[in-house]
Amino acid sequence: MAKYPISLINLIGFLRKLPGVGTKTAERFAFQLLTWPQEQLEHFSQILHTLKEKVQSCPECHCLMEQAECAFCDPMKRDASILCIISCPKDVYAFEETRMYRGFYHVLGALLSPLDGRMPDHLDLDQLKERIQKLHTQEVIIALDSTIEGDATSLYLKESLVKLGLKVSRLAFGLPMGSPLEYVDGSTLSRALLGRQHF
Amino acid sequence: MAKYPISLINLIGFLRKLPGVGTKTAERFAFQLLTWPQEQLEHFSQILHTLKEKVQSCPECHCLMEQAECAFCDPMKRDASILCIISCPKDVYAFEETRMYRGFYHVLGALLSPLDGRMPDHLDLDQLKERIQKLHTQEVIIALDSTIEGDATSLYLKESLVKLGLKVSRLAFGLPMGSPLEYVDGSTLSRALLGRQHF
Repeated sequence: MAKYPISLINLIGFLRKLPGVGTKTAERFAFQLLTWPQEQLEHFSQILHTLKEKVQSCPECHCLMEQAECAFCDPMKRDASILCIISCPKDVYAFEETRMYRGFYHVLGALLSPLDGRMPDHLDLDQLKERIQKLHTQEVIIALDSTIEGDATSLYLKESLVKLGLKVSRLAFGLPMGSPLEYVDGSTLSRALLGRQHF
Repeated sequence: MAKYPISLINLIGFLRKLPGVGTKTAERFAFQLLTWPQEQLEHFSQILHTLKEKVQSCPECHCLMEQAECAFCDPMKRDASILCIISCPKDVYAFEETRMYRGFYHVLGALLSPLDGRMPDHLDLDQLKERIQKLHTQEVIIALDSTIEGDATSLYLKESLVKLGLKVSRLAFGLPMGSPLEYVDGSTLSRALLGRQHF
């Protein structure tokens, strides 16, 4: 890297930590930040400083919450009999946008990945089971990524939860909407075929 | 946008201001920032807060400087007889990386763009002329973007500077290095043809 001023080099270092941001992009970001008005930089800086203090994780469902009460854990507004297991807090919002689900959530926070050292004890299954008991959950929807880690975690969860006498399902696999068949990859097509629905 | 916590919505708003960052990317950045350790967020926040105070613009050449003295304005280390006119501070570092130029720089800070209201008085030609006189500049290299704005500004500068009896040149146009001819666009090829060099 060229001999930028130290503060700029440090800033570029932090910007590079953002997902998908390489040195070139981080440099472009940093030079653009230099053109921001001071009050905007201060406001941005302030938000970053207080981010984790203001946006906390609900101790029950591990969704994000800014108020004292979690918006996703209110039994008056939500159906406690059904629980959706999600890997990260962001996915909860994608679910909410569908407006098709009014049950409870449970954010795992991690997926099994033995190669990265994430073993079953990282999932804190005890807390999940306690919640299921407390909420009198009857149905569990496993809504994890369709990746190797997501598959492994789903299988592990399924085996643990079926034993509790729960109705357990996983999101369907198949063609994404609006996708011409010629652009669909082989493994998606295989799963769509396996899960074909009869009229 | 889904109902994220307010602090997160504000953070996404700021991240979206970065160049080339849309809502989806800003959301990804924001959720990743949530996973950073608090001390990293604080350090990042601190750098943003003090960025403009620490990284200042040299009153002479308008390059960036963090110390009291500008690294690009030292006549002991640099050849004052030659001056390179650049549009923004970032380009100076690209030039420095070539290790082929040891003259002085002058950062314009803007290019002419009548449609955006940037007229010749935005260029502060008086200060440039004063510097040229003070430095006893003999040669000026115009190193502006090969865009319509860069072309217009270069032409305007050339006309003003040639009158002062200076040797004025502009960077060459032609094929970028390592580029197969079939991927070169028509206007680049035309300029390369016009500027062809005889052996």
